[in-house]
Amino acid sequence: MTDQRHNGGGARPNIPASALSEMDRIAMLQTAHQAADLSRAAILPHFRIPITVENKAQDASFDPVTVADRAAEQVIRDHIARHWPEHGLIGEEFGLTRETAHVQWIIDPIDGTRSFIIGSPLWGTLIGATCEAVPVLGLLDQPFTKERFYAGAQGAYLQTPQSPQPRPLATRACASLENAVLTTTHPDHIQETADLERFYSLKSRVQLSRYGGDCYAYGLLAAGFIDLVVETGLNTYDIAALIPIVEQAGGKITTWEGEPAIHGGRIIAAGDPALHEAAMNVLANPFG
Amino acid sequence: MTDQRHNGGGARPNIPASALSEMDRIAMLQTAHQAADLSRAAILPHFRIPITVENKAQDASFDPVTVADRAAEQVIRDHIARHWPEHGLIGEEFGLTRETAHVQWIIDPIDGTRSFIIGSPLWGTLIGATCEAVPVLGLLDQPFTKERFYAGAQGAYLQTPQSPQPRPLATRACASLENAVLTTTHPDHIQETADLERFYSLKSRVQLSRYGGDCYAYGLLAAGFIDLVVETGLNTYDIAALIPIVEQAGGKITTWEGEPAIHGGRIIAAGDPALHEAAMNVLANPFG
Repeated sequence: MTDQRHNGGGARPNIPASALSEMDRIAMLQTAHQAADLSRAAILPHFRIPITVENKAQDASFDPVTVADRAAEQVIRDHIARHWPEHGLIGEEFGLTRETAHVQWIIDPIDGTRSFIIGSPLWGTLIGATCEAVPVLGLLDQPFTKERFYAGAQGAYLQTPQSPQPRPLATRACASLENAVLTTTHPDHIQETADLERFYSLKSRVQLSRYGGDCYAYGLLAAGFIDLVVETGLNTYDIAALIPIVEQAGGKITTWEGEPAIHGGRIIAAGDPALHEAAMNVLANPFG
Repeated sequence: MTDQRHNGGGARPNIPASALSEMDRIAMLQTAHQAADLSRAAILPHFRIPITVENKAQDASFDPVTVADRAAEQVIRDHIARHWPEHGLIGEEFGLTRETAHVQWIIDPIDGTRSFIIGSPLWGTLIGATCEAVPVLGLLDQPFTKERFYAGAQGAYLQTPQSPQPRPLATRACASLENAVLTTTHPDHIQETADLERFYSLKSRVQLSRYGGDCYAYGLLAAGFIDLVVETGLNTYDIAALIPIVEQAGGKITTWEGEPAIHGGRIIAAGDPALHEAAMNVLANPFG
Protein backbone atom coordinates (compact mmCIF):
# COMPACT_ATOMS: atom_id res chain seq x y z
CA MET A 1 0.00 0.00 0.00
CA THR A 2 1.31 3.41 -0.91
CA ASP A 3 0.83 6.71 0.87
CA GLN A 4 -1.64 7.77 -1.76
CA ARG A 5 -3.78 4.77 -0.99
CA HIS A 6 -3.75 5.47 2.76
CA ASN A 7 -4.89 8.99 2.04
CA GLY A 8 -7.72 7.76 -0.20
CA GLY A 9 -11.29 8.68 0.55
CA GLY A 10 -11.38 12.47 0.44
CA ALA A 11 -11.20 14.54 -2.71
CA ARG A 12 -7.58 15.37 -3.52
CA PRO A 13 -6.64 18.93 -2.54
CA ASN A 14 -5.91 20.06 -6.12
CA ILE A 15 -9.38 19.12 -7.37
CA PRO A 16 -12.13 21.70 -6.82
CA ALA A 17 -14.49 19.69 -4.62
CA SER A 18 -17.42 21.77 -5.86
CA ALA A 19 -16.86 20.58 -9.40
CA LEU A 20 -16.93 16.83 -8.80
CA SER A 21 -18.21 14.98 -5.75
CA GLU A 22 -16.62 11.82 -4.41
CA MET A 23 -19.78 9.97 -5.41
CA ASP A 24 -19.47 11.32 -8.94
CA ARG A 25 -15.91 10.06 -9.14
CA ILE A 26 -16.91 6.59 -7.99
CA ALA A 27 -19.78 6.52 -10.47
CA MET A 28 -17.51 7.77 -13.26
CA LEU A 29 -15.02 4.96 -12.62
CA GLN A 30 -17.93 2.53 -12.87
CA THR A 31 -18.84 4.07 -16.22
CA ALA A 32 -15.23 3.68 -17.37
CA HIS A 33 -15.27 -0.03 -16.46
CA GLN A 34 -18.53 -0.55 -18.35
CA ALA A 35 -17.18 1.31 -21.38
CA ALA A 36 -14.03 -0.83 -21.29
CA ASP A 37 -16.13 -4.00 -21.20
CA LEU A 38 -17.94 -2.77 -24.31
CA SER A 39 -14.75 -1.74 -26.12
CA ARG A 40 -13.13 -5.07 -25.29
CA ALA A 41 -16.02 -6.82 -26.99
CA ALA A 42 -15.78 -4.42 -29.95
CA ILE A 43 -12.02 -4.87 -30.42
CA LEU A 44 -11.37 -8.57 -29.86
CA PRO A 45 -13.13 -9.85 -33.00
CA HIS A 46 -10.62 -7.77 -35.01
CA PHE A 47 -7.46 -8.86 -33.18
CA ARG A 48 -5.22 -11.43 -34.90
CA ILE A 49 -7.48 -11.41 -37.93
CA PRO A 50 -6.22 -10.11 -41.29
CA ILE A 51 -7.48 -6.51 -41.13
CA THR A 52 -7.41 -3.52 -43.45
CA VAL A 53 -4.92 -0.99 -42.13
CA GLU A 54 -5.31 2.63 -43.20
CA ASN A 55 -2.44 5.07 -42.95
CA LYS A 56 -3.67 8.34 -41.46
CA ALA A 57 -0.25 10.05 -41.53
CA GLN A 58 -0.21 13.34 -43.46
CA ASP A 59 3.44 12.82 -44.43
CA ALA A 60 5.52 9.85 -45.58
CA SER A 61 5.34 8.15 -42.20
CA PHE A 62 3.07 5.29 -41.15
CA ASP A 63 0.33 6.02 -38.60
CA PRO A 64 -2.05 3.09 -38.81
CA VAL A 65 -5.72 3.05 -37.92
CA THR A 66 -8.20 0.21 -38.25
CA VAL A 67 -11.91 -0.44 -37.98
CA ALA A 68 -11.17 -1.76 -34.48
CA ASP A 69 -9.91 1.66 -33.30
CA ARG A 70 -13.00 3.39 -34.64
CA ALA A 71 -15.52 0.80 -33.43
CA ALA A 72 -14.04 0.85 -29.93
CA GLU A 73 -13.99 4.64 -29.65
CA GLN A 74 -17.58 4.82 -30.83
CA VAL A 75 -18.91 2.41 -28.19
CA ILE A 76 -16.91 4.16 -25.47
CA ARG A 77 -18.14 7.61 -26.52
CA ASP A 78 -21.74 6.44 -26.77
CA HIS A 79 -21.67 4.83 -23.35
CA ILE A 80 -20.10 7.86 -21.64
CA ALA A 81 -22.43 10.32 -23.37
CA ARG A 82 -25.43 8.30 -22.22
CA HIS A 83 -24.34 8.44 -18.57
CA TRP A 84 -22.66 11.87 -18.43
CA PRO A 85 -24.28 13.98 -21.15
CA GLU A 86 -22.88 17.21 -19.72
CA HIS A 87 -19.23 16.04 -19.82
CA GLY A 88 -16.78 16.72 -22.64
CA LEU A 89 -15.07 14.01 -24.68
CA ILE A 90 -11.68 13.91 -26.40
CA GLY A 91 -10.84 10.84 -28.46
CA GLU A 92 -7.95 9.96 -30.77
CA GLU A 93 -10.16 9.03 -33.71
CA PHE A 94 -13.23 11.30 -33.46
CA GLY A 95 -11.89 14.46 -31.83
CA LEU A 96 -13.56 16.82 -29.34
CA THR A 97 -17.12 17.15 -28.05
CA ARG A 98 -18.19 19.90 -25.57
CA GLU A 99 -14.62 21.10 -25.15
CA THR A 100 -15.55 23.81 -22.64
CA ALA A 101 -17.03 21.38 -20.09
CA HIS A 102 -15.28 21.28 -16.69
CA VAL A 103 -15.07 17.50 -16.82
CA GLN A 104 -13.47 15.89 -19.86
CA TRP A 105 -13.24 12.21 -20.75
CA ILE A 106 -10.07 11.42 -22.68
CA ILE A 107 -10.01 8.26 -24.79
CA ASP A 108 -7.54 6.31 -26.87
CA PRO A 109 -9.42 3.24 -28.09
CA ILE A 110 -6.23 1.41 -29.10
CA ASP A 111 -3.01 2.88 -27.77
CA GLY A 112 -0.37 0.93 -29.66
CA THR A 113 -2.12 0.30 -32.96
CA ARG A 114 1.24 -0.71 -34.47
CA SER A 115 1.50 -3.49 -31.85
CA PHE A 116 -2.14 -4.40 -32.42
CA ILE A 117 -1.66 -4.94 -36.15
CA ILE A 118 1.38 -7.19 -35.63
CA GLY A 119 -0.57 -9.40 -33.20
CA SER A 120 1.39 -8.42 -30.08
CA PRO A 121 -0.64 -8.03 -26.86
CA LEU A 122 1.30 -4.89 -25.87
CA TRP A 123 -1.44 -2.34 -26.57
CA GLY A 124 -4.44 -1.18 -24.63
CA THR A 125 -7.62 0.84 -24.42
CA LEU A 126 -7.21 4.07 -22.44
CA ILE A 127 -10.11 5.80 -20.73
CA GLY A 128 -9.32 8.77 -18.49
CA ALA A 129 -11.12 11.80 -17.15
CA THR A 130 -10.04 15.21 -15.93
CA CYS A 131 -11.72 17.95 -13.92
CA GLU A 132 -10.30 21.39 -14.68
CA ALA A 133 -7.41 19.63 -16.43
CA VAL A 134 -6.54 17.55 -13.33
CA PRO A 135 -6.77 13.77 -13.89
CA VAL A 136 -9.43 12.20 -11.67
CA LEU A 137 -9.51 8.62 -12.97
CA GLY A 138 -7.72 6.37 -15.41
CA LEU A 139 -8.21 2.92 -16.87
CA LEU A 140 -6.00 0.79 -19.13
CA ASP A 141 -7.64 -2.34 -20.51
CA GLN A 142 -5.80 -5.10 -22.38
CA PRO A 143 -8.56 -7.12 -24.07
CA PHE A 144 -6.50 -10.15 -25.18
CA THR A 145 -4.83 -10.85 -21.82
CA LYS A 146 -7.93 -9.55 -20.01
CA GLU A 147 -5.82 -7.36 -17.74
CA ARG A 148 -7.18 -4.10 -16.43
CA PHE A 149 -5.12 -1.43 -14.65
CA TYR A 150 -7.18 1.39 -13.12
CA ALA A 151 -7.18 4.18 -10.57
CA GLY A 152 -9.93 6.41 -9.20
CA ALA A 153 -10.21 8.30 -5.96
CA GLN A 154 -9.27 5.26 -3.89
CA GLY A 155 -6.01 3.84 -5.14
CA ALA A 156 -4.66 2.04 -8.18
CA TYR A 157 -5.49 -1.59 -8.91
CA LEU A 158 -4.84 -4.42 -11.34
CA GLN A 159 -7.40 -7.04 -12.23
CA THR A 160 -6.34 -10.13 -14.21
CA PRO A 161 -7.87 -13.52 -15.01
CA GLN A 162 -5.14 -15.01 -12.80
CA SER A 163 -6.23 -12.78 -9.90
CA PRO A 164 -9.85 -11.65 -10.48
CA GLN A 165 -9.92 -9.93 -7.09
CA PRO A 166 -8.30 -6.55 -7.90
CA ARG A 167 -4.94 -6.19 -6.21
CA PRO A 168 -3.35 -2.86 -5.30
CA LEU A 169 -0.69 -1.58 -7.67
CA ALA A 170 2.52 -0.29 -6.10
CA THR A 171 5.67 0.90 -7.83
CA ARG A 172 8.98 -0.44 -6.55
CA ALA A 173 11.74 1.46 -4.80
CA CYS A 174 14.66 2.10 -7.17
CA ALA A 175 16.42 5.37 -6.51
CA SER A 176 19.53 4.89 -8.65
CA LEU A 177 19.81 4.79 -12.41
CA GLU A 178 22.37 1.98 -12.37
CA ASN A 179 19.73 -0.44 -11.02
CA ALA A 180 16.89 0.82 -13.18
CA VAL A 181 14.92 -0.72 -16.04
CA LEU A 182 14.11 1.91 -18.70
CA THR A 183 11.66 1.54 -21.57
CA THR A 184 10.45 3.58 -24.50
CA THR A 185 8.05 2.45 -27.21
CA HIS A 186 10.47 2.93 -30.12
CA PRO A 187 13.53 5.16 -30.41
CA ASP A 188 12.33 6.27 -33.86
CA HIS A 189 9.42 8.02 -32.15
CA ILE A 190 11.93 10.42 -30.58
CA GLN A 191 12.18 12.72 -33.57
CA GLU A 192 14.36 15.60 -32.36
CA THR A 193 18.08 14.80 -32.46
CA ALA A 194 18.68 16.66 -29.20
CA ASP A 195 15.97 14.63 -27.49
CA LEU A 196 17.43 11.41 -28.83
CA GLU A 197 20.85 12.35 -27.45
CA ARG A 198 19.26 13.00 -24.06
CA PHE A 199 17.44 9.69 -24.21
CA TYR A 200 20.57 7.73 -25.17
CA SER A 201 22.56 9.44 -22.42
CA LEU A 202 19.95 8.29 -19.92
CA LYS A 203 19.84 4.82 -21.45
CA SER A 204 23.63 4.46 -21.10
CA ARG A 205 23.30 4.85 -17.33
CA VAL A 206 20.59 2.26 -16.58
CA GLN A 207 20.93 -1.47 -15.98
CA LEU A 208 18.51 -2.59 -18.67
CA SER A 209 16.57 -0.98 -21.50
CA ARG A 210 13.72 -2.53 -23.45
CA TYR A 211 11.77 -1.10 -26.37
CA GLY A 212 8.06 -1.49 -27.04
CA GLY A 213 5.11 -1.33 -24.74
CA ASP A 214 3.08 1.82 -25.46
CA CYS A 215 0.59 2.23 -22.58
CA TYR A 216 1.33 -1.25 -21.27
CA ALA A 217 4.77 -0.11 -20.08
CA TYR A 218 3.16 2.41 -17.72
CA GLY A 219 1.02 -0.40 -16.30
CA LEU A 220 4.12 -2.49 -15.66
CA LEU A 221 5.77 0.54 -14.05
CA ALA A 222 2.75 0.95 -11.74
CA ALA A 223 3.00 -2.78 -10.94
CA GLY A 224 6.66 -2.42 -9.89
CA PHE A 225 8.49 -4.13 -12.77
CA ILE A 226 9.71 -1.17 -14.83
CA ASP A 227 11.39 1.86 -13.23
CA LEU A 228 11.39 4.48 -15.98
CA VAL A 229 9.36 5.17 -19.11
CA VAL A 230 10.65 8.03 -21.25
CA GLU A 231 8.90 9.18 -24.41
CA THR A 232 8.30 12.18 -26.63
CA GLY A 233 5.57 13.44 -28.91
CA LEU A 234 2.69 12.06 -26.85
CA ASN A 235 -0.83 13.45 -27.14
CA THR A 236 -3.13 14.04 -24.20
CA TYR A 237 -5.10 10.90 -25.11
CA ASP A 238 -1.89 8.81 -24.95
CA ILE A 239 -1.21 9.75 -21.33
CA ALA A 240 -4.29 11.14 -19.51
CA ALA A 241 -5.60 7.76 -18.32
CA LEU A 242 -2.13 6.64 -17.23
CA ILE A 243 -1.37 9.56 -14.90
CA PRO A 244 -3.65 8.49 -12.01
CA ILE A 245 -2.52 4.88 -12.38
CA VAL A 246 1.16 5.84 -12.07
CA GLU A 247 0.64 8.44 -9.35
CA GLN A 248 -1.68 6.42 -7.15
CA ALA A 249 0.69 3.44 -7.38
CA GLY A 250 3.38 5.69 -5.87
CA GLY A 251 5.17 6.89 -9.00
CA LYS A 252 5.87 10.30 -10.47
CA ILE A 253 4.97 11.36 -14.01
CA THR A 254 5.66 14.75 -15.60
CA THR A 255 6.94 16.32 -18.78
CA TRP A 256 10.71 16.56 -19.26
CA GLU A 257 10.29 20.14 -17.98
CA GLY A 258 8.70 18.90 -14.75
CA GLU A 259 5.25 20.20 -15.75
CA PRO A 260 2.00 18.22 -15.45
CA ALA A 261 1.89 15.39 -17.98
CA ILE A 262 -1.77 15.88 -18.88
CA HIS A 263 -1.16 17.78 -22.11
CA GLY A 264 1.31 15.17 -23.40
CA GLY A 265 4.57 16.13 -25.10
CA ARG A 266 7.85 14.77 -23.74
CA ILE A 267 6.93 12.49 -20.83
CA ILE A 268 8.93 10.85 -18.06
CA ALA A 269 7.38 8.40 -15.61
CA ALA A 270 9.33 6.92 -12.70
CA GLY A 271 8.27 4.35 -10.14
CA ASP A 272 10.43 5.97 -7.50
CA PRO A 273 10.24 9.79 -7.17
CA ALA A 274 13.98 9.87 -6.34
CA LEU A 275 14.69 8.14 -9.65
CA HIS A 276 12.50 10.71 -11.41
CA GLU A 277 14.81 13.42 -10.08
CA ALA A 278 17.97 11.52 -11.08
CA ALA A 279 16.64 10.92 -14.59
CA MET A 280 15.48 14.53 -14.97
CA ASN A 281 19.03 15.66 -14.13
CA VAL A 282 20.42 13.53 -16.97
CA LEU A 283 17.79 14.73 -19.45
CA ALA A 284 18.67 18.33 -18.51
CA ASN A 285 22.45 17.72 -18.63
CA PRO A 286 22.96 14.74 -20.90
CA PHE A 287 26.70 15.32 -21.23
CA GLY A 288 27.18 16.33 -17.57
CA MET B 1 -3.03 -24.68 -45.24
CA THR B 2 0.49 -24.56 -46.61
CA ASP B 3 2.20 -26.92 -49.01
CA GLN B 4 4.13 -28.41 -46.13
CA ARG B 5 0.87 -29.27 -44.44
CA HIS B 6 -0.50 -30.95 -47.56
CA ASN B 7 2.67 -33.00 -47.73
CA GLY B 8 2.44 -33.98 -44.07
CA GLY B 9 2.30 -37.59 -43.05
CA GLY B 10 5.51 -39.12 -44.34
CA ALA B 11 8.97 -38.48 -42.96
CA ARG B 12 10.54 -35.44 -44.65
CA PRO B 13 13.09 -36.41 -47.28
CA ASN B 14 16.05 -34.84 -45.46
CA ILE B 15 15.48 -36.90 -42.29
CA PRO B 16 16.95 -40.40 -42.28
CA ALA B 17 13.81 -42.48 -41.85
CA SER B 18 15.83 -45.19 -40.16
CA ALA B 19 16.79 -42.85 -37.33
CA LEU B 20 13.35 -41.73 -36.25
CA SER B 21 10.00 -43.28 -37.13
CA GLU B 22 6.86 -41.30 -37.71
CA MET B 23 5.46 -42.84 -34.53
CA ASP B 24 8.51 -41.69 -32.61
CA ARG B 25 8.02 -38.14 -33.84
CA ILE B 26 4.37 -38.11 -32.81
CA ALA B 27 5.28 -39.52 -29.40
CA MET B 28 8.10 -36.99 -29.02
CA LEU B 29 5.74 -34.09 -29.72
CA GLN B 30 3.46 -35.49 -27.03
CA THR B 31 6.42 -35.50 -24.63
CA ALA B 32 7.18 -31.89 -25.56
CA HIS B 33 3.58 -30.86 -24.76
CA GLN B 34 3.74 -32.64 -21.40
CA ALA B 35 7.09 -31.02 -20.58
CA ALA B 36 5.66 -27.60 -21.49
CA ASP B 37 2.69 -28.20 -19.18
CA LEU B 38 5.15 -28.94 -16.37
CA SER B 39 7.39 -25.95 -17.14
CA ARG B 40 4.37 -23.64 -17.33
CA ALA B 41 3.44 -24.72 -13.80
CA ALA B 42 7.06 -24.27 -12.67
CA ILE B 43 7.43 -20.78 -14.14
CA LEU B 44 4.11 -19.04 -13.45
CA PRO B 45 4.50 -18.76 -9.66
CA HIS B 46 7.64 -16.67 -10.32
CA PHE B 47 6.16 -14.33 -12.95
CA ARG B 48 5.22 -10.80 -11.86
CA ILE B 49 6.57 -11.50 -8.38
CA PRO B 50 9.62 -9.61 -7.09
CA ILE B 51 12.38 -12.10 -7.95
CA THR B 52 16.13 -12.27 -7.43
CA VAL B 53 17.85 -11.69 -10.76
CA GLU B 54 21.40 -12.96 -11.20
CA ASN B 55 23.68 -11.62 -13.89
CA LYS B 56 25.43 -14.48 -15.64
CA ALA B 57 27.33 -12.27 -18.10
CA GLN B 58 31.12 -12.74 -18.00
CA ASP B 59 31.67 -9.12 -19.02
CA ALA B 60 30.10 -5.76 -18.10
CA SER B 61 26.82 -6.60 -19.85
CA PHE B 62 23.59 -7.82 -18.27
CA ASP B 63 22.49 -11.40 -18.99
CA PRO B 64 19.86 -12.17 -16.39
CA VAL B 65 18.87 -15.58 -15.08
CA THR B 66 16.36 -16.42 -12.36
CA VAL B 67 15.21 -19.39 -10.31
CA ALA B 68 12.32 -19.64 -12.80
CA ASP B 69 14.70 -20.37 -15.72
CA ARG B 70 16.46 -23.09 -13.75
CA ALA B 71 13.33 -24.67 -12.27
CA ALA B 72 11.69 -24.83 -15.70
CA GLU B 73 14.70 -26.35 -17.45
CA GLN B 74 15.02 -28.96 -14.69
CA VAL B 75 11.42 -30.19 -15.01
CA ILE B 76 11.69 -30.27 -18.81
CA ARG B 77 15.00 -32.21 -18.73
CA ASP B 78 13.68 -34.66 -16.15
CA HIS B 79 10.51 -35.33 -18.11
CA ILE B 80 12.31 -35.86 -21.41
CA ALA B 81 14.99 -38.05 -19.85
CA ARG B 82 12.33 -40.24 -18.30
CA HIS B 83 10.62 -40.82 -21.66
CA TRP B 84 13.60 -40.79 -24.02
CA PRO B 85 16.63 -41.88 -21.97
CA GLU B 86 18.73 -42.54 -25.09
CA HIS B 87 18.30 -39.00 -26.49
CA GLY B 88 20.69 -36.10 -25.92
CA LEU B 89 19.74 -32.81 -24.27
CA ILE B 90 21.00 -29.26 -24.77
CA GLY B 91 19.66 -26.57 -22.45
CA GLU B 92 20.53 -22.91 -21.94
CA GLU B 93 21.03 -23.25 -18.20
CA PHE B 94 22.41 -26.77 -17.64
CA GLY B 95 24.36 -27.51 -20.81
CA LEU B 96 24.76 -30.79 -22.71
CA THR B 97 23.90 -34.40 -21.90
CA ARG B 98 24.73 -37.31 -24.27
CA GLU B 99 25.95 -34.97 -26.96
CA THR B 100 26.77 -37.77 -29.41
CA ALA B 101 23.18 -39.11 -29.55
CA HIS B 102 21.49 -38.95 -32.98
CA VAL B 103 18.44 -37.27 -31.51
CA GLN B 104 18.94 -34.11 -29.46
CA TRP B 105 16.37 -32.15 -27.48
CA ILE B 106 17.15 -28.44 -27.42
CA ILE B 107 15.64 -26.35 -24.63
CA ASP B 108 15.44 -22.71 -23.63
CA PRO B 109 13.28 -22.62 -20.50
CA ILE B 110 12.70 -18.86 -20.72
CA ASP B 111 13.65 -17.27 -24.04
CA GLY B 112 13.37 -13.55 -23.27
CA THR B 113 14.38 -13.48 -19.60
CA ARG B 114 14.77 -9.68 -19.87
CA SER B 115 11.10 -9.44 -20.87
CA PHE B 116 10.16 -11.91 -18.14
CA ILE B 117 11.76 -9.81 -15.39
CA ILE B 118 10.01 -6.62 -16.53
CA GLY B 119 6.62 -8.36 -16.41
CA SER B 120 6.01 -8.36 -20.18
CA PRO B 121 4.36 -11.46 -21.66
CA LEU B 122 6.69 -11.44 -24.69
CA TRP B 123 8.84 -14.43 -23.70
CA GLY B 124 8.39 -18.15 -24.00
CA THR B 125 9.56 -21.67 -23.26
CA LEU B 126 11.24 -23.34 -26.22
CA ILE B 127 11.41 -27.10 -26.64
CA GLY B 128 12.79 -28.44 -29.88
CA ALA B 129 14.35 -31.63 -31.14
CA THR B 130 16.69 -32.55 -33.96
CA CYS B 131 17.69 -35.79 -35.65
CA GLU B 132 21.15 -35.62 -37.20
CA ALA B 133 20.98 -31.83 -36.74
CA VAL B 134 17.72 -31.55 -38.71
CA PRO B 135 14.83 -30.06 -36.68
CA VAL B 136 11.99 -32.56 -36.28
CA LEU B 137 9.70 -30.76 -33.85
CA GLY B 138 9.35 -27.42 -32.10
CA LEU B 139 7.18 -25.93 -29.39
CA LEU B 140 6.89 -22.38 -28.06
CA ASP B 141 4.81 -22.01 -24.90
CA GLN B 142 3.73 -18.67 -23.39
CA PRO B 143 2.58 -19.55 -19.86
CA PHE B 144 0.92 -16.23 -18.95
CA THR B 145 -1.24 -15.88 -22.07
CA LYS B 146 -1.51 -19.70 -22.27
CA GLU B 147 -0.63 -19.66 -25.97
CA ARG B 148 1.22 -22.57 -27.51
CA PHE B 149 2.76 -22.57 -30.99
CA TYR B 150 4.03 -25.98 -32.14
CA ALA B 151 5.01 -28.03 -35.15
CA GLY B 152 5.78 -31.71 -35.58
CA ALA B 153 5.58 -33.98 -38.59
CA GLN B 154 2.07 -32.85 -39.44
CA GLY B 155 1.98 -29.08 -39.69
CA ALA B 156 2.27 -26.07 -37.42
CA TYR B 157 -0.49 -25.09 -35.00
CA LEU B 158 -1.46 -22.50 -32.42
CA GLN B 159 -3.52 -23.30 -29.35
CA THR B 160 -4.90 -20.45 -27.23
CA PRO B 161 -7.49 -20.11 -24.47
CA GLN B 162 -9.57 -18.14 -26.99
CA SER B 163 -9.38 -21.04 -29.46
CA PRO B 164 -8.59 -24.26 -27.54
CA GLN B 165 -8.98 -26.33 -30.71
CA PRO B 166 -5.52 -25.94 -32.30
CA ARG B 167 -5.67 -23.95 -35.50
CA PRO B 168 -3.20 -24.25 -38.36
CA LEU B 169 -0.51 -21.57 -38.52
CA ALA B 170 0.14 -20.02 -41.91
CA THR B 171 2.44 -17.14 -42.76
CA ARG B 172 1.07 -14.38 -44.97
CA ALA B 173 2.08 -13.50 -48.49
CA CYS B 174 4.26 -10.37 -48.56
CA ALA B 175 6.87 -10.42 -51.29
CA SER B 176 8.01 -6.80 -51.18
CA LEU B 177 9.97 -5.01 -48.48
CA GLU B 178 7.91 -1.83 -48.77
CA ASN B 179 4.85 -3.64 -47.41
CA ALA B 180 6.70 -5.63 -44.76
CA VAL B 181 6.69 -5.55 -40.97
CA LEU B 182 10.20 -6.19 -39.59
CA THR B 183 11.11 -6.95 -35.99
CA THR B 184 14.22 -7.60 -33.95
CA THR B 185 14.42 -8.08 -30.20
CA HIS B 186 16.68 -5.08 -29.52
CA PRO B 187 19.10 -3.28 -31.84
CA ASP B 188 21.73 -3.34 -29.04
CA HIS B 189 21.89 -7.12 -29.45
CA ILE B 190 23.38 -6.55 -32.93
CA GLN B 191 26.92 -6.05 -31.75
CA GLU B 192 28.96 -5.79 -34.96
CA THR B 193 28.82 -2.34 -36.55
CA ALA B 194 28.72 -3.85 -40.04
CA ASP B 195 25.75 -6.01 -39.06
CA LEU B 196 23.96 -3.03 -37.56
CA GLU B 197 24.46 -1.09 -40.80
CA ARG B 198 22.99 -4.00 -42.74
CA PHE B 199 20.06 -4.19 -40.33
CA TYR B 200 19.34 -0.45 -40.53
CA SER B 201 19.57 -0.53 -44.31
CA LEU B 202 16.93 -3.27 -44.33
CA LYS B 203 14.83 -1.42 -41.75
CA SER B 204 14.83 1.73 -43.89
CA ARG B 205 13.11 -0.19 -46.70
CA VAL B 206 10.20 -1.75 -44.77
CA GLN B 207 6.81 -0.28 -43.92
CA LEU B 208 6.99 -0.80 -40.17
CA SER B 209 9.60 -1.90 -37.67
CA ARG B 210 8.97 -2.92 -34.07
CA TYR B 211 11.47 -3.94 -31.41
CA GLY B 212 11.05 -6.62 -28.77
CA GLY B 213 9.56 -10.04 -28.96
CA ASP B 214 12.30 -12.66 -28.59
CA CYS B 215 10.80 -16.04 -29.57
CA TYR B 216 7.27 -14.62 -29.57
CA ALA B 217 8.05 -12.65 -32.74
CA TYR B 218 8.68 -15.90 -34.66
CA GLY B 219 5.31 -17.17 -33.44
CA LEU B 220 3.61 -14.03 -34.77
CA LEU B 221 5.49 -14.46 -38.06
CA ALA B 222 4.21 -18.05 -38.31
CA ALA B 223 0.71 -16.73 -37.57
CA GLY B 224 0.91 -14.23 -40.45
CA PHE B 225 1.26 -10.90 -38.61
CA ILE B 226 4.99 -10.20 -38.90
CA ASP B 227 6.87 -10.59 -42.19
CA LEU B 228 10.54 -10.51 -41.18
CA VAL B 229 12.52 -11.23 -38.02
CA VAL B 230 16.23 -10.40 -38.25
CA GLU B 231 18.64 -11.05 -35.40
CA THR B 232 22.27 -11.82 -34.62
CA GLY B 233 24.18 -13.69 -31.94
CA LEU B 234 21.56 -16.38 -31.40
CA ASN B 235 22.41 -19.72 -29.85
CA THR B 236 21.04 -23.05 -31.03
CA TYR B 237 18.63 -23.11 -28.06
CA ASP B 238 17.22 -19.70 -29.08
CA ILE B 239 16.18 -20.93 -32.51
CA ALA B 240 15.96 -24.76 -32.77
CA ALA B 241 12.33 -25.01 -31.61
CA LEU B 242 11.27 -22.13 -33.84
CA ILE B 243 12.56 -23.53 -37.14
CA PRO B 244 9.83 -26.18 -37.65
CA ILE B 245 7.15 -23.69 -36.57
CA VAL B 246 8.27 -21.11 -39.14
CA GLU B 247 8.93 -23.63 -41.92
CA GLN B 248 5.75 -25.67 -41.52
CA ALA B 249 3.71 -22.45 -41.45
CA GLY B 250 5.12 -21.66 -44.90
CA GLY B 251 8.03 -19.38 -43.98
CA LYS B 252 11.76 -19.53 -44.62
CA ILE B 253 14.40 -19.29 -41.92
CA THR B 254 18.18 -19.39 -42.46
CA THR B 255 21.35 -17.66 -41.37
CA TRP B 256 22.29 -14.42 -43.12
CA GLU B 257 24.55 -16.63 -45.26
CA GLY B 258 21.59 -18.77 -46.32
CA GLU B 259 22.76 -21.74 -44.26
CA PRO B 260 20.51 -23.84 -41.96
CA ALA B 261 19.50 -21.84 -38.89
CA ILE B 262 19.91 -24.73 -36.46
CA HIS B 263 23.29 -23.65 -35.12
CA GLY B 264 22.12 -20.08 -34.44
CA GLY B 265 24.24 -17.05 -35.31
CA ARG B 266 22.81 -14.33 -37.56
CA ILE B 267 19.25 -15.38 -38.33
CA ILE B 268 16.66 -14.18 -40.83
CA ALA B 269 13.10 -15.50 -40.85
CA ALA B 270 10.56 -14.46 -43.47
CA GLY B 271 6.91 -15.37 -43.78
CA ASP B 272 7.13 -15.25 -47.58
CA PRO B 273 10.12 -17.01 -49.23
CA ALA B 274 10.22 -14.24 -51.88
CA LEU B 275 10.64 -11.67 -49.10
CA HIS B 276 13.45 -13.77 -47.64
CA GLU B 277 15.29 -13.42 -50.94
CA ALA B 278 14.66 -9.66 -51.14
CA ALA B 279 15.86 -9.15 -47.58
CA MET B 280 18.93 -11.35 -48.10
CA ASN B 281 19.88 -9.16 -51.05
CA VAL B 282 19.79 -6.05 -48.85
CA LEU B 283 21.77 -7.71 -46.07
CA ALA B 284 24.40 -8.74 -48.65
CA ASN B 285 24.44 -5.31 -50.36
CA PRO B 286 23.22 -2.83 -47.77
CA PHE B 287 24.38 0.20 -49.77
CA GLY B 288 23.37 -1.24 -53.16
